[in-house]
Amino acid sequence: VTLLTDFGTRDGYVGAMKGVILSRCPNATIADLSHDVEPQDVLGGALALAAGAPWFPAGTIHVAVVDPGVGSARRALLADDGHALYVGPDNGLISLAAPHPRALYVLDRPAWFQEPVSATFHGRDVFASVAGHLAAAVRPSRLATPTEEFHRLALPAPRRTAAGYTGEIVHCDRFGNLVTNITAAEVSALGGGIRVEIAGNVIGRVSRTYADSATGHLVALVGSGGRLEIAVRDGSARERLALERPIGMPVRVTTRTT
Amino acid sequence: VTLLTDFGTRDGYVGAMKGVILSRCPNATIADLSHDVEPQDVLGGALALAAGAPWFPAGTIHVAVVDPGVGSARRALLADDGHALYVGPDNGLISLAAPHPRALYVLDRPAWFQEPVSATFHGRDVFASVAGHLAAAVRPSRLATPTEEFHRLALPAPRRTAAGYTGEIVHCDRFGNLVTNITAAEVSALGGGIRVEIAGNVIGRVSRTYADSATGHLVALVGSGGRLEIAVRDGSARERLALERPIGMPVRVTTRTT
Amino acid sequence: VTLLTDFGTRDGYVGAMKGVILSRCPNATIADLSHDVEPQDVLGGALALAAGAPWFPAGTIHVAVVDPGVGSARRALLADDGHALYVGPDNGLISLAAPHPRALYVLDRPAWFQEPVSATFHGRDVFASVAGHLAAAVRPSRLATPTEEFHRLALPAPRRTAAGYTGEIVHCDRFGNLVTNITAAEVSALGGGIRVEIAGNVIGRVSRTYADSATGHLVALVGSGGRLEIAVRDGSARERLALERPIGMPVRVTTRTT
Repeated sequence: VTLLTDFGTRDGYVGAMKGVILSRCPNATIADLSHDVEPQDVLGGALALAAGAPWFPAGTIHVAVVDPGVGSARRALLADDGHALYVGPDNGLISLAAPHPRALYVLDRPAWFQEPVSATFHGRDVFASVAGHLAAAVRPSRLATPTEEFHRLALPAPRRTAAGYTGEIVHCDRFGNLVTNITAAEVSALGGGIRVEIAGNVIGRVSRTYADSATGHLVALVGSGGRLEIAVRDGSARERLALERPIGMPVRVTTRTT
Repeated sequence: VTLLTDFGTRDGYVGAMKGVILSRCPNATIADLSHDVEPQDVLGGALALAAGAPWFPAGTIHVAVVDPGVGSARRALLADDGHALYVGPDNGLISLAAPHPRALYVLDRPAWFQEPVSATFHGRDVFASVAGHLAAAVRPSRLATPTEEFHRLALPAPRRTAAGYTGEIVHCDRFGNLVTNITAAEVSALGGGIRVEIAGNVIGRVSRTYADSATGHLVALVGSGGRLEIAVRDGSARERLALERPIGMPVRVTTRTT
Repeated sequence: VTLLTDFGTRDGYVGAMKGVILSRCPNATIADLSHDVEPQDVLGGALALAAGAPWFPAGTIHVAVVDPGVGSARRALLADDGHALYVGPDNGLISLAAPHPRALYVLDRPAWFQEPVSATFHGRDVFASVAGHLAAAVRPSRLATPTEEFHRLALPAPRRTAAGYTGEIVHCDRFGNLVTNITAAEVSALGGGIRVEIAGNVIGRVSRTYADSATGHLVALVGSGGRLEIAVRDGSARERLALERPIGMPVRVTTRTT
């Protein structure tokens, strides 16, 4: 069972979730994916889940709770993509990690919840409880009701231009690396001789690794998630470009001859 | 075995505790409750422990170390409340999670410590060592000496007024939710038609959930810990009210007719 | 298996490492040592690893990734010190925890990596993959090639003076305690009557514990890592001395009679 939340760990909320899971399945292995997602940043959580979840073994149960709509009519979901199970609110949080679920369920059977369900902490009372039962080998079809649709987050797609693509920054990581929505496939389709523009700066090529540039210099490369990113060797691209709010900032990729 | 400390994780102190536990009981399951308690904030740690610990299965060993008095004459404790064991300094840290222990012990037998015991890191040398032995099924009565009393933290009780209660903020969580010392029972005893006052603001009712108010508006509700809290939908009540030091700030609950 | 990185947990990178390990060895026990090492602070990571790793049981596999040179020609290492295995980049990160390895290996056999190896995330593709295979009982000699030398970090040694030692601050922990490079052995060699000078302040003796001084006062003591440190009871020595960059600041220890 993995856990990803925006709860931080200071307040004991994550501890309560772990306790509920272990109460239902004492020999569950719990791995923290992250609890430092920015409060209520559903997209940030979805990207972190998509970065971490695919590497876990088959049969892993991923519990993700970034849930600004807790207590509203938003549904609680369980998705099965054939490799793993995903449990979380129906707000798109699990849609990047599991874009093509083989089966989808709504969590609508209180018998499998921690009763009484609080109006503000479904992480503990709904999602952790269901995950604990799943870890204890209860089948999805027993504890939830099939459904067809779920809320999808769409990463903005880069726009094809005459000479390449115009995309944007979709994530800034702890190192200040700026991750774009332009994929490795799109970069290689342009062939060699590529230049990258961001915030008035031009980077003359796509490097293989941070170490291909000098300390302190901007570098463009395909990151470990398979998307173009802008970095600074031994530094922070975010700081170097003095970007307060990097998310959404345009990035242009063009073949150098244009 | 759960761990709750104010050590952060940057310095390797928590790692040392985990190592000591696993050295005594290699197949122990260790769950981090929190290591982000504010340095030396015993009350904050006690509240986080009380929020997380009750949800763990019977027989869990909770190790809690927020210990400004390490090296002084303060005692080291082991409490058994019939459901779980609690290990930590005798400064009140475990008294909110285990207010009515069935048995209390002083940790005064160096044979069960990591020798030589450093004067500054009982988390590793006393508490983790004892917890590891407990996890390896050593009985409390074998490794500690019974005692009768322990240091209790008293949350301030709300004051009954003509028209309701005057309580105060006792905790501010990562989301900026302000948790009071007024319980759900006290709120319901007042019946319907309640209004809540904090820092010159009036909230006209107690809602069921954050989603019952509009984005950015103050909302009062009974939180997942069973106490009245003040929140802002999709925001932070602490920021909205511009509270630098929210702890201790008075909160008035009155029936609306007065 | 323990993990120590400078990745933070916000971005899912640590989750990916855990997934890769568990994919190779589903019943591995993973303990987080730290993910809050300052980005690219190899010395800080090395000190945290040295503080935590020795306490783990024999046979533990320690994975440490603070790796500013990822993608460059820096080698990937596996060290065996007879007690534990250490996996990480060859930049000194593991040299304080394992200063005298009994066997050293270069990780140069892609069959044991997560292929294709990204140029920027060897934590996942090289180190976690190798650690997972080691946890699944693959022998070091099978997955790596023996080597003789590795990069060592040298903590600066204190200088012997007429009346004692002049050392320096090598680490500042979460509590603002300032850890020096002067060892307990060097302090006791000076006998009794010692005074400590730092940043124009004189501390008249070496105490046993924080509690030996009054709240808010500077205290010098031998910390849990066996080195002299400067602290403030119930406070932060770093703040008390208004040190922006404490690392490298000189500390003088002299016998008081001089």
